[in-house]
Amino acid sequence: EAAFDPTEHQHVRFNPLRGDWVLVSPHRMKRPWAGQVEPPPQDDLPDHDPTNPLCPGVSRPSGVVNPNYTSTFVFNNDFPALLEEVPSPPEAPGEELLQWGPARGCCRVMCFHPKTSVTLPTMTQDEVRNVVDRWVAETEELGQKYEWVQIFENKGATMGCSNPHPHCQIWASSFLPSEAMLEDMHQKQYFLKHGTRLLHDYTTKELQQKERIVLEQEDWLVVVPHWAVWPYETLVLPRQPVSRITQLTSSERDGLACLIRRLTAKYDNLFQCSFPYSMGWHGAPTGCHLQEKGEGLDVSDYWVLHAHYYPPLLRSATVKKFMVGYEMLAQAQRDLTPEQAARTLRDLPDVHYKCRKD
Amino acid sequence: EAAFDPTEHQHVRFNPLRGDWVLVSPHRMKRPWAGQVEPPPQDDLPDHDPTNPLCPGVSRPSGVVNPNYTSTFVFNNDFPALLEEVPSPPEAPGEELLQWGPARGCCRVMCFHPKTSVTLPTMTQDEVRNVVDRWVAETEELGQKYEWVQIFENKGATMGCSNPHPHCQIWASSFLPSEAMLEDMHQKQYFLKHGTRLLHDYTTKELQQKERIVLEQEDWLVVVPHWAVWPYETLVLPRQPVSRITQLTSSERDGLACLIRRLTAKYDNLFQCSFPYSMGWHGAPTGCHLQEKGEGLDVSDYWVLHAHYYPPLLRSATVKKFMVGYEMLAQAQRDLTPEQAARTLRDLPDVHYKCRKD
Ligand SMILES: O=P(O)(O)O[C@H]1O[C@H](CO)[C@@H](O)[C@H](O)[C@H]1O
Ligand SMILES: O=P(O)(O)O[C@H]1O[C@H](CO)[C@@H](O)[C@H](O)[C@H]1O
Repeated sequence: EAAFDPTEHQHVRFNPLRGDWVLVSPHRMKRPWAGQVEPPPQDDLPDHDPTNPLCPGVSRPSGVVNPNYTSTFVFNNDFPALLEEVPSPPEAPGEELLQWGPARGCCRVMCFHPKTSVTLPTMTQDEVRNVVDRWVAETEELGQKYEWVQIFENKGATMGCSNPHPHCQIWASSFLPSEAMLEDMHQKQYFLKHGTRLLHDYTTKELQQKERIVLEQEDWLVVVPHWAVWPYETLVLPRQPVSRITQLTSSERDGLACLIRRLTAKYDNLFQCSFPYSMGWHGAPTGCHLQEKGEGLDVSDYWVLHAHYYPPLLRSATVKKFMVGYEMLAQAQRDLTPEQAARTLRDLPDVHYKCRKD
Repeated sequence: EAAFDPTEHQHVRFNPLRGDWVLVSPHRMKRPWAGQVEPPPQDDLPDHDPTNPLCPGVSRPSGVVNPNYTSTFVFNNDFPALLEEVPSPPEAPGEELLQWGPARGCCRVMCFHPKTSVTLPTMTQDEVRNVVDRWVAETEELGQKYEWVQIFENKGATMGCSNPHPHCQIWASSFLPSEAMLEDMHQKQYFLKHGTRLLHDYTTKELQQKERIVLEQEDWLVVVPHWAVWPYETLVLPRQPVSRITQLTSSERDGLACLIRRLTAKYDNLFQCSFPYSMGWHGAPTGCHLQEKGEGLDVSDYWVLHAHYYPPLLRSATVKKFMVGYEMLAQAQRDLTPEQAARTLRDLPDVHYKCRKD
């Protein structure tokens, strides 16, 4: 029997953060694709569009007029999935199979820049640093009241983003969302077993093995995780075990701004397009979890702050990976290996193809 | 404070089969949509296309020529994600964070009908019954060798289906996929606690409450589950606690063929289009699980056979629900309530709009 070669032979890998598995079938990259293609990402956008509700000075559907903002700009979502004050469902005692519960929260939109034509990799270092600072400030404020503050960016029409202006969203909730519960549980169990942090130990391993590293900086690391599901999925990790975005020092924030520009430039360079993705931050829960417990385990003992990037593209600017039948009903499946994806991203220039002077 | 109204007020619901939550935000249906639209589903297909590798008599990329089949037709996928014989990865002892394992399996394609122009709701009762029988036969055969036999159908280009010929896929594996593990764990825990089957008790509850029922037949039930994630997601349940598709009696198979035609006709009638979805069957694990244990718990004691339908459309034939940023990073979120979706589907005719004589 031939020797096992992970770039040739199917196998499964375990995600210790979520506790599930992914099927890796690298030989499947050879399959031809004749199915649906995505419209190519929009390009050559105007700096300002007086009909775009995210632009400075434009009046939104709610009637409110945006200020003439010059840096970041945050406002409450006009069609929020989570409202602050709503009646709670009555308790249904004994209805184990029909459980429901209350949900309160707040949904905000955060514009990154006054110009529609820019994206994170084409913004300046100072401008991206402003974005990082605003993430911290929003988490600080909303975290006082809410258990979880989810910062996320849907980029590109393929990812359901209906507005090309550079922006992200912040949804804060009175409950721990399912993904947060999963990651909390697995990080906690690991800490109770080893007395060390899961993601910090993982960072150490990746720094030793090197083959899944995309970017390495003084304070930060980007890897294609061993258990990545999306073709070019990445995980952003701090070198020191910081548990919340609010704990980052000024130089760590500078490093992060630099890292985000470099990573998103690599992504855009991959298929020479404005690369779609959904990304978001995960850190230790907030709200009632902010009070340090005198004794006993504190969430900030075992959590490590991190960002997930989930980009859908597989082969080109218009052919994505469909997470459908088998993936929805059975298990996530990927084609190229995480190590192959990491090498491709690592080898790409970290200067955006539109900004290169050659 | 106003009284709680589930069709107006956000809340969370628990999925007892997977152990996670969904955020229900019905007020969000009022949000305007200006984002990406899907190409309308293909219509007016030819009966036969000599270039389509799924049609009778056509030669596939592998060089093999399809027989001139007249009913269902099953063959091994030419680009399988799972192969039967591959070298296994070496064990990496102590590498808790970098776990991987072997994966063996078999991927088949099953054509439903010789004609490209038909779909399940426009096929005859006898033709759909043939499909059901073939599902049973494949599960019987592959289940001898493999722990899990996943039958699934990706329908429509939106669901990554690259071929309009009516077909499904069967992927059998030497391991329990993640979704199967989750459902196994929750059904087992419920049985150990109550001595009854989770999905059988749930069926009883839905028959009492009625408000989430889409279709009710002698042996079968279709509901929009209390915890549905996709806008028009449904769950097909047997009235008797059958644990595997191979256990269905002849009259239960007839009933199932009838039910599938009625359900998929309702789906097509919703937006008067060939409705895209991913669907699949879940039943008690097979392979080594087929030996009845003399003592102790057997998987067939606590499993109930069921099918999930996951359709992406939300508002029209071209506007889908995007499961992106918040959903990928935090928690599934839906707009209309499961009860609203059930009522809409229940009230639709169960005869296909193309077959109606009026
Ligand atoms: O097997 P197909 O139809 O080529 O491929 C489709 O279904 C598979 C199973 O759900 C997915 O892994 C693929 O991403 C999807 O494009
Ligand atoms: O809030 P938006 O951009 O209107 O909506 C987008 O992101 C949301 C959060 O991930 C999703 O629930 C929506 O399905 C998607 O279209």
